[in-house]
Amino acid sequence: MTSFFKGVYPIMATPFNPDETLDLDGFRKSIAFMVDAGAQGATITGVLGESNRMTDKEREALIRVAVDVAGTCGRPFRVCVGTSHAGISATADLSQMAQDLGADAVMVTPTKELAPTPDDMLVELYARVAKKCPGLPIVLQDHPASTQVHMSVPLLCRIVLEVPTVTCIKLESLPTPAKIAQVRQKWAQVPPKQECTILTGLGALYGGFDLEQGTEGFMTGFAFPEILAAMNHAAQAGDMERAHALYARFLPLMVFEQQPGVAVRKELYRRRGLLKSGHVRAPAPSSVSPVLAKALEKLLVRTFGSGCDLTKPLPAEVFT
Amino acid sequence: MTSFFKGVYPIMATPFNPDETLDLDGFRKSIAFMVDAGAQGATITGVLGESNRMTDKEREALIRVAVDVAGTCGRPFRVCVGTSHAGISATADLSQMAQDLGADAVMVTPTKELAPTPDDMLVELYARVAKKCPGLPIVLQDHPASTQVHMSVPLLCRIVLEVPTVTCIKLESLPTPAKIAQVRQKWAQVPPKQECTILTGLGALYGGFDLEQGTEGFMTGFAFPEILAAMNHAAQAGDMERAHALYARFLPLMVFEQQPGVAVRKELYRRRGLLKSGHVRAPAPSSVSPVLAKALEKLLVRTFGSGCDLTKPLPAEVFT
Amino acid sequence: MTSFFKGVYPIMATPFNPDETLDLDGFRKSIAFMVDAGAQGATITGVLGESNRMTDKEREALIRVAVDVAGTCGRPFRVCVGTSHAGISATADLSQMAQDLGADAVMVTPTKELAPTPDDMLVELYARVAKKCPGLPIVLQDHPASTQVHMSVPLLCRIVLEVPTVTCIKLESLPTPAKIAQVRQKWAQVPPKQECTILTGLGALYGGFDLEQGTEGFMTGFAFPEILAAMNHAAQAGDMERAHALYARFLPLMVFEQQPGVAVRKELYRRRGLLKSGHVRAPAPSSVSPVLAKALEKLLVRTFGSGCDLTKPLPAEVFT
Amino acid sequence: MTSFFKGVYPIMATPFNPDETLDLDGFRKSIAFMVDAGAQGATITGVLGESNRMTDKEREALIRVAVDVAGTCGRPFRVCVGTSHAGISATADLSQMAQDLGADAVMVTPTKELAPTPDDMLVELYARVAKKCPGLPIVLQDHPASTQVHMSVPLLCRIVLEVPTVTCIKLESLPTPAKIAQVRQKWAQVPPKQECTILTGLGALYGGFDLEQGTEGFMTGFAFPEILAAMNHAAQAGDMERAHALYARFLPLMVFEQQPGVAVRKELYRRRGLLKSGHVRAPAPSSVSPVLAKALEKLLVRTFGSGCDLTKPLPAEVFT
Repeated sequence: MTSFFKGVYPIMATPFNPDETLDLDGFRKSIAFMVDAGAQGATITGVLGESNRMTDKEREALIRVAVDVAGTCGRPFRVCVGTSHAGISATADLSQMAQDLGADAVMVTPTKELAPTPDDMLVELYARVAKKCPGLPIVLQDHPASTQVHMSVPLLCRIVLEVPTVTCIKLESLPTPAKIAQVRQKWAQVPPKQECTILTGLGALYGGFDLEQGTEGFMTGFAFPEILAAMNHAAQAGDMERAHALYARFLPLMVFEQQPGVAVRKELYRRRGLLKSGHVRAPAPSSVSPVLAKALEKLLVRTFGSGCDLTKPLPAEVFT
Repeated sequence: MTSFFKGVYPIMATPFNPDETLDLDGFRKSIAFMVDAGAQGATITGVLGESNRMTDKEREALIRVAVDVAGTCGRPFRVCVGTSHAGISATADLSQMAQDLGADAVMVTPTKELAPTPDDMLVELYARVAKKCPGLPIVLQDHPASTQVHMSVPLLCRIVLEVPTVTCIKLESLPTPAKIAQVRQKWAQVPPKQECTILTGLGALYGGFDLEQGTEGFMTGFAFPEILAAMNHAAQAGDMERAHALYARFLPLMVFEQQPGVAVRKELYRRRGLLKSGHVRAPAPSSVSPVLAKALEKLLVRTFGSGCDLTKPLPAEVFT
Repeated sequence: MTSFFKGVYPIMATPFNPDETLDLDGFRKSIAFMVDAGAQGATITGVLGESNRMTDKEREALIRVAVDVAGTCGRPFRVCVGTSHAGISATADLSQMAQDLGADAVMVTPTKELAPTPDDMLVELYARVAKKCPGLPIVLQDHPASTQVHMSVPLLCRIVLEVPTVTCIKLESLPTPAKIAQVRQKWAQVPPKQECTILTGLGALYGGFDLEQGTEGFMTGFAFPEILAAMNHAAQAGDMERAHALYARFLPLMVFEQQPGVAVRKELYRRRGLLKSGHVRAPAPSSVSPVLAKALEKLLVRTFGSGCDLTKPLPAEVFT
Repeated sequence: MTSFFKGVYPIMATPFNPDETLDLDGFRKSIAFMVDAGAQGATITGVLGESNRMTDKEREALIRVAVDVAGTCGRPFRVCVGTSHAGISATADLSQMAQDLGADAVMVTPTKELAPTPDDMLVELYARVAKKCPGLPIVLQDHPASTQVHMSVPLLCRIVLEVPTVTCIKLESLPTPAKIAQVRQKWAQVPPKQECTILTGLGALYGGFDLEQGTEGFMTGFAFPEILAAMNHAAQAGDMERAHALYARFLPLMVFEQQPGVAVRKELYRRRGLLKSGHVRAPAPSSVSPVLAKALEKLLVRTFGSGCDLTKPLPAEVFT
């Protein structure tokens, strides 16, 4: 099995109307923006997408929109669907729904539950999703900050080995550079049968260091996929100094954006024209504080100059 | 508004087939058992019901069955539906679904999310459910062990005051006797407009002490609602010594049953004939350990004698 | 190595004056009470002893008093000292201090820290204490409720195998009966070189069920060691029905006492004359609520009658 | 009362020998380095200092060394001592020890404990330290990542108002820029009697944004206090663009260094010649992974060039 998880897969925010209902038109435009920006695909209903605050029907509606945009955009654009759930059978059911609706892949995080042999249970999680969804690529999200599950390197490698449709690890377990290197070292000794890539997450905060250890792109919510694409392009071409220079140049923006709270990110998406409203669902704070909004505005000017139109994908000259 | 939350409302386990699909026939029988055992109603899709491991469709199927049994049993039997969710709008949506399907009430736990003014957000949670479901009684479940939310007594009273359809508190915040007394003291000073009762949970572990402080019944998963009914009957009639004597007599069973893990309880439900299989959904351990199963068997004999048929509601003489 | 951890080792509360300074006279009397009550020893500076709110000098002062009482009481009476600390070297240093001051044993809980190989680190914890304190018996406290560390049965057995001065497990990981049975099963296959006993903790809440699985006594804060001794005596003599009868009879007291908050227990100790003041150190609530104090008073009358002098060890006829 | 908490106060790591004993000579050199680097003082026995893994005697030894270096360095150099402890009386006792030994200030974090009125308990914490240590300046560390205590802006302001020796807030609660602005806004309305500054922590990760909101310096473990001093100097002189330019330039280093694990930081301190060994006390991982060590080496070359001697304070031309 070959992995198509290379390049840039933005994690999508979910646009809500001020009354908290889904803004599906806005979602359609958001996905279309990522197509225009040259992303390889998009991951929906993840943590940033506030999937934990949605009903299953809402998830369904979002999948339909994303699959529709992808199917009519005229080029391969993959829709990856976050289907994590506290129950294994429900994770499998949600994954099957995604597959049935035409999604290209699912992203699954482990859930924290005390099992007598926790590692076996985590293998079972991925195995059961794989069994229920034959042929569907699975992204293993390793993100202890949201899951409280700390997966060892041997466990990660065991899952990839035993579940051949796991073709990507979104590796977000700190410190990421060390863990990426350890996984790749293991794979050098015992290669998995399928191709399995590692993508960088965490808002690209450690992007320069992760690429250095061999990640093959980004799956994260940083609102400038063009910049990530440029970094990744340089890194994959072996020009690590250029990758690092881009990283260093845009790092203040990455640092600012990854501050906790979905609202900060949605504000940036809003400024890029992806969302009409940055409204976040309760019980999270519904919007960014005015202080942060103003600091962000200054930062954008400092980064791109005052005349830059951010509502369109940035032309290459902006970041060369 | 008058509260019907008096007496005994068992928390229902959800029967699964060994392949983890819903056993709806089993669920029908479980509810019917509670009707026969004289319960005032039943609460479904709570923590013990493993609602956190279900899809929304599965919740729907369970509600339909419970409402159907209640509607055809020939006497008032209330169906209360747990609709807690990480998102407030989703909690409201699930509550509306329950109301639309004919449920008599919903049970809602607070969710832990860092809000700038957490108390206001918790009031909003209940207010929004109330607004979406006009006239539907709401049980406020105060159970920090599962929610990590510690609600102060003033906050509890504020919610009851501001949301007049909250007609019951399932008070499970330790030490329960002290908190029950404090809430009732507050109410003595500033009574809510509606009638609001307090019910005992936590497997009745503190049942004797809670009744002493004025709870008006039980909403909990202890598998012998007949015993709880007898305790409650004595307490409400003012015969606290008899309530305590029953409590003391059956306390080893309560202690045994409230050991962590849904599997222990399901095993007891299984022995009572409510479930064909005590299977628990992954990633939780799927069944009780043989050691506990055997210890439970001994305990049942020690408690009821060896000839007692537990698959039928116990006749009153067993516990008088 | 032979284990002397059989019988009853009460966990001692630490008496404080209302200004939060140590009441060493009170502590002396508390230990002396346990000698009179027939306990085999006492465990000081544990969780109930509020050791986490003490300076090292205060620990030292308490050890001196306990060792002095034990040394002059005219019979073997073991002093076990809790020496758990977030750092391994500090745990070893505190253990050495205890040994130097004449303590008979130390009790060590694992600390939660993310190590690349957590099991190895836990073995190292016990090994380093053992190395620093040659010949000093170690009690391994397995109490996830306070440590958040979940030790598997193989890990427990590995520690006992690799660290021969671990001669007791205070097993408080739920459900305890199952875990006790599993450890003993392992030992039946691969016996440790030293004698290692398992003691019951958790306020004796599961005492009847634990004894049934083979614990050899109690190390816990339940304020009636005489009752625990009688239960244990019956169980070790093979009269499990009598052990269970005692357990059932006093279970309401055990349930009441193990409610969270050190204050509940200290109130009971105070009523038994062990403490002048039940004051608990800040930031914990400084005393039991009046509601609980009154409920406790009623419960004591209900349990022992109104004329019973609790300030002396109960004569055997009280519980036969 | 005037606050001297302006400028740069590095958080000191504690040097250990490979056998985990204190390396007091190394500590002396570390402090002396900070004197040479132009810092206004140093904060010892904080989180980075691994104070949670130390005995009280070890704390004492470290305070003595730091106070001695400060007293003989020929210019004002303040020693601030972390004295946080799970118990309030122990926090006060440790603070008194620090004062008695000649420390200039203490740093106190709140501890998480369920009190009926948690805010009152936190005020009491600071009030009791203040009472025990008359005249001793207190730094309030607001760092939920290590304490799990989320202090509201009104609570922070209340503590400063009620405890006049609190003359500094080390504000590390995310998102920091918003919270800094909110505190200052409150103070604009109701100014505290004493001067109280806000310092930036968190490895300076948000340094540029924090300075913009009015922090007056840094109290953090970033290993290049010279750079922080230059940033702060620019900001206090009103040249925010220069502050931001410095921030942006050195941000990859800040990002790298603040990766979790004390070992990363100690490796950088080691490379700067402050520590002979970067050994971290168990149960934490004892050293940085080779992958991270190598990535750090590359990053240092990328940042400072290959010929730069990092073991001496950097000359100003390096960062102008």
